[in-house]
Amino acid sequence: MIKVNENFLKLKSSYLFSEIAKRVSAFSEKNPDKKIIRLGIGDVTLPLPEVSIRALHMAVDEMGKEETFRGYGPENGYEFLREEIVRVDYRARRICIEEDEIFVSDGAKCDTGNFQELFSKDILVSVQDPVYPVYVDTNVMSGRGGDFKDGRYSEFLYLQSTKENNYLPEIPNKKVDLIYLCFPNNPTGVVASKEYLKAWVEYAKENNSLILFDAAYEAFIRNENIPHSIYEIEGAKEVSVEFRSFSKTAGFTGLRAAYTVVPKECRVFDSQKNKIMLNPLWNRRQSTKFNGLSYPVQRAAAAIYSERGQAEIRSLSDYYLKNAKKIKEVFLEKGYTAVGGEDSPYVWINGGEDSWEIFELLLNKAGVVCTPGVGFGKCGEGHIRLSAFNSRQNVKEALDRISKVLF
Amino acid sequence: MIKVNENFLKLKSSYLFSEIAKRVSAFSEKNPDKKIIRLGIGDVTLPLPEVSIRALHMAVDEMGKEETFRGYGPENGYEFLREEIVRVDYRARRICIEEDEIFVSDGAKCDTGNFQELFSKDILVSVQDPVYPVYVDTNVMSGRGGDFKDGRYSEFLYLQSTKENNYLPEIPNKKVDLIYLCFPNNPTGVVASKEYLKAWVEYAKENNSLILFDAAYEAFIRNENIPHSIYEIEGAKEVSVEFRSFSKTAGFTGLRAAYTVVPKECRVFDSQKNKIMLNPLWNRRQSTKFNGLSYPVQRAAAAIYSERGQAEIRSLSDYYLKNAKKIKEVFLEKGYTAVGGEDSPYVWINGGEDSWEIFELLLNKAGVVCTPGVGFGKCGEGHIRLSAFNSRQNVKEALDRISKVLF
Repeated sequence: MIKVNENFLKLKSSYLFSEIAKRVSAFSEKNPDKKIIRLGIGDVTLPLPEVSIRALHMAVDEMGKEETFRGYGPENGYEFLREEIVRVDYRARRICIEEDEIFVSDGAKCDTGNFQELFSKDILVSVQDPVYPVYVDTNVMSGRGGDFKDGRYSEFLYLQSTKENNYLPEIPNKKVDLIYLCFPNNPTGVVASKEYLKAWVEYAKENNSLILFDAAYEAFIRNENIPHSIYEIEGAKEVSVEFRSFSKTAGFTGLRAAYTVVPKECRVFDSQKNKIMLNPLWNRRQSTKFNGLSYPVQRAAAAIYSERGQAEIRSLSDYYLKNAKKIKEVFLEKGYTAVGGEDSPYVWINGGEDSWEIFELLLNKAGVVCTPGVGFGKCGEGHIRLSAFNSRQNVKEALDRISKVLF
Repeated sequence: MIKVNENFLKLKSSYLFSEIAKRVSAFSEKNPDKKIIRLGIGDVTLPLPEVSIRALHMAVDEMGKEETFRGYGPENGYEFLREEIVRVDYRARRICIEEDEIFVSDGAKCDTGNFQELFSKDILVSVQDPVYPVYVDTNVMSGRGGDFKDGRYSEFLYLQSTKENNYLPEIPNKKVDLIYLCFPNNPTGVVASKEYLKAWVEYAKENNSLILFDAAYEAFIRNENIPHSIYEIEGAKEVSVEFRSFSKTAGFTGLRAAYTVVPKECRVFDSQKNKIMLNPLWNRRQSTKFNGLSYPVQRAAAAIYSERGQAEIRSLSDYYLKNAKKIKEVFLEKGYTAVGGEDSPYVWINGGEDSWEIFELLLNKAGVVCTPGVGFGKCGEGHIRLSAFNSRQNVKEALDRISKVLF
């Protein structure tokens, strides 16, 4: 008898953003003439950088001629792209990362979701609360979650981000094996200082833990004292894997491109406590279950590393940061607690009691889509996440409409 | 302590095609002036269809303008693509499949590799031998393989494809839970008749099993009596999932596109023998761990379903089929046993004793890359797979060179 993986049956309802999409489309159907402004899902709205558009056209032309056509590429990405990543994202910041430590993929969602496959089932996993749901759900699917009760899975250690600790969780005083960290944080927009990350790296070394560091939003960091990469911390390579994405950096949400860094020093352990290198394991996973990123998309990604490309993506993130600043200001002025929105495209607002209620209020009365904080975890209750990914005009209009409803 | 998934340590050496690539590049380095003809990995060589090139350019232009830019798409693919798939690949063949039973992805390798996540660990898996290594390796990673001994994993049921049964395995006389079938077969090129698939569907119903049917090569079928889809068999929807790919159909190996069909009737069971529908589970898996296929690539895929697109892809597969026919003829004439090569781009040749030896002989003496049969399983020993994916001229030259070495 073909038996189901019963861990799937423990998952709570649908994936958060699918649920939001469903509610929004139900609203549109009932109100076809009402203009909805989406500040919910973190999806970019500005077009792709010109350098990427040009690179795409050129690559497409190559694919149309026998002499320049390319079939299967390397599973971990073409060298032309991995070289640029290493040069600009790491060496320019004085971080020594090699080309064969870079694994190009079609999304940080896939990579952060798939990476847990490399680990034993009986490890203790910690996530921040609120948290990007992918870390939680994928570990539940693999049987690490236990039962869902009172808003949480029984087997995870939740690191609470609350108003009391400025939304920056304390380092745990018990041993955790696998630690998901995301900075600039999704959903709170909070960033991590060098000292904070240093404490985590030390913790991971002492406890033989591994950090999965999601840096999908690093392009929004403007504060010079905030690290863009966990590898800015000495010794981090031994204990951390880093995830990066072109989605928010360069507007690739619909084009799909990301990469994961697995340093050769990075280790896990077998049950006899022998060190096992993680890099060849991820390579084996990717070459078995993934077939490389679309060639034209890799050219588009490589294009952003030119001088012109860097200027273009900088202006993209500048644009959204200005939106974020405006959003935060409006809420702060009105006396709300709001964090993020400075080195991040997200503003995290403490808005009341029930975050789905705020969601429904904003949707029905203001026609604005936010993300209800509780969808990211128990500590998100009472909060909403507003995203800066929209046009200046829409953000302004959304804030006007929200003001009428909330303030 | 962060413990490794020790199942990964049970995997044999590297993924077959990575191993071949390594040996070929070692040979090129030593013989930089020798022209290598690749008939190993099944990678297409003709450029993308013109309809797809046009669609890509148009979609790229859309991505460069704010009014037409598209961010995140639906995880299961845009409706414009799923509608075309349903219309041409199914309804035109009188198979009733709905749009929400189609899941677009970036590769059949990923989908056939990931699908086993939905099942319990303690199921009995059967694979054909020889077999596309992805089915085996991904189940080993999930702990279903047992130990590797004497060329096989102890916990799988291997269905032997040998000269004696015309490379078409008998249906087992014991209960199997999950059955991987691939027709037209990779690597043997053998096809399955309606009667043969009917017997499998009946078997799956009687035994509460599930069939994962890999139809990545269906575009090469010319014989009108051979089914293109397992859903041509009555009742198959309840017991089968089908995988399709644009890689070989339309030359998308470097562009990446595929889809998986999970009918709403298709069921698995929980441990209390309750029926569980598979369609929402795969939807949950994909919406959690995948973020949709690149928008321009979806446009390129949709373009092949126009009348002109269908003619273009037909001429692509015709071209390769002519190569395949030639390869098979040459070997048959010389008295070798060779199958496939008619409704398939692969020719499977019984070439001697040791297939890595034949691989090395062809590489070193003829400069031709084949795939050693034993890389696909124990029953592949003594065989090689030659792929028709190359230019007419290269295939001719390869056959000339092989003739001098082998015959």
